[in-house]
Amino acid sequence: MGIDPGVASTGYGVVRFDGGRVAALDGGVIETPAALEPGRRLVRIHEAVTELLRRHEPDAVALEDLYFGKNVRSAVGVGQARGVVMLAAAQAGLPCFDYTPQAVKMSVCGTGGASKEQVQRMVGALLGLDGPPSSDHAADALAVAICHANRAAFEVAAAGAARDARTVGVTP
Amino acid sequence: MGIDPGVASTGYGVVRFDGGRVAALDGGVIETPAALEPGRRLVRIHEAVTELLRRHEPDAVALEDLYFGKNVRSAVGVGQARGVVMLAAAQAGLPCFDYTPQAVKMSVCGTGGASKEQVQRMVGALLGLDGPPSSDHAADALAVAICHANRAAFEVAAAGAARDARTVGVTP
Repeated sequence: MGIDPGVASTGYGVVRFDGGRVAALDGGVIETPAALEPGRRLVRIHEAVTELLRRHEPDAVALEDLYFGKNVRSAVGVGQARGVVMLAAAQAGLPCFDYTPQAVKMSVCGTGGASKEQVQRMVGALLGLDGPPSSDHAADALAVAICHANRAAFEVAAAGAARDARTVGVTP
Repeated sequence: MGIDPGVASTGYGVVRFDGGRVAALDGGVIETPAALEPGRRLVRIHEAVTELLRRHEPDAVALEDLYFGKNVRSAVGVGQARGVVMLAAAQAGLPCFDYTPQAVKMSVCGTGGASKEQVQRMVGALLGLDGPPSSDHAADALAVAICHANRAAFEVAAAGAARDARTVGVTP
């Protein structure tokens, strides 16, 4: 499950990776009203993420590392939303992985310098959707989920290659 | 209860404000080992704060607004710790108040430009401790708790004055 955390809008996307193909299982946005007290907004995000983890039982949670293009005030806000998402994942016993925006773009578009629109189009194409996801936040969450699925598949393949090499007596 | 959130060290301080005098009830630091997975560190902070709130049953939680003198990366880290503290407060049904470092220094030392050492000395003196608190983080947490106690006492007094003014037919 990929998550794009934010106090007002937290995107989520769940993908299944199977035999080299990736498919979307769910995607959407958790929204919290600005009128709500800040602590109550975090309660909503924490509850919604906990419920999504319970429903989908993913193997892992992936988040984008959002240190760039932010000022310190907005970074604190994103950090607060991120904190309750990481807490929900750890409470569910799941590992949490961070990816830089460059790694996500590279994984989805083949170039670390892809535009937001290219990422959205490629997410739609890779997942076989009718078009790009309508929400930016859901698209970003699906993109980081795809990035993690690719990385995890690569590591499984690399571990398999190392094992095969050992079987035939080659030092990996 | 004042809290100075941080991933490695979260300071806390509990004060009672009664008839113009402020007294320390508790103070200390929640520490999490760097070797622990980031999500597990947040679980520790959330559990420890939840337990402190249960034990002391404070009226409110006060946090320092730490937007200054931070880079974006450390702001995200502080934000993550802050998020789980705000979550614990909201889950306990408590309001959370933010104070700027200037407001805290003004309240404790009478000047917004006081040094860290002046704040620590004044916290020790105001609370009648034998000396300044040994931990920076506990001192900062006690300072923000004192700041909130002063503000809350002022607001109660102002509301009382307005009520008295109405009683004698004076528009406040």
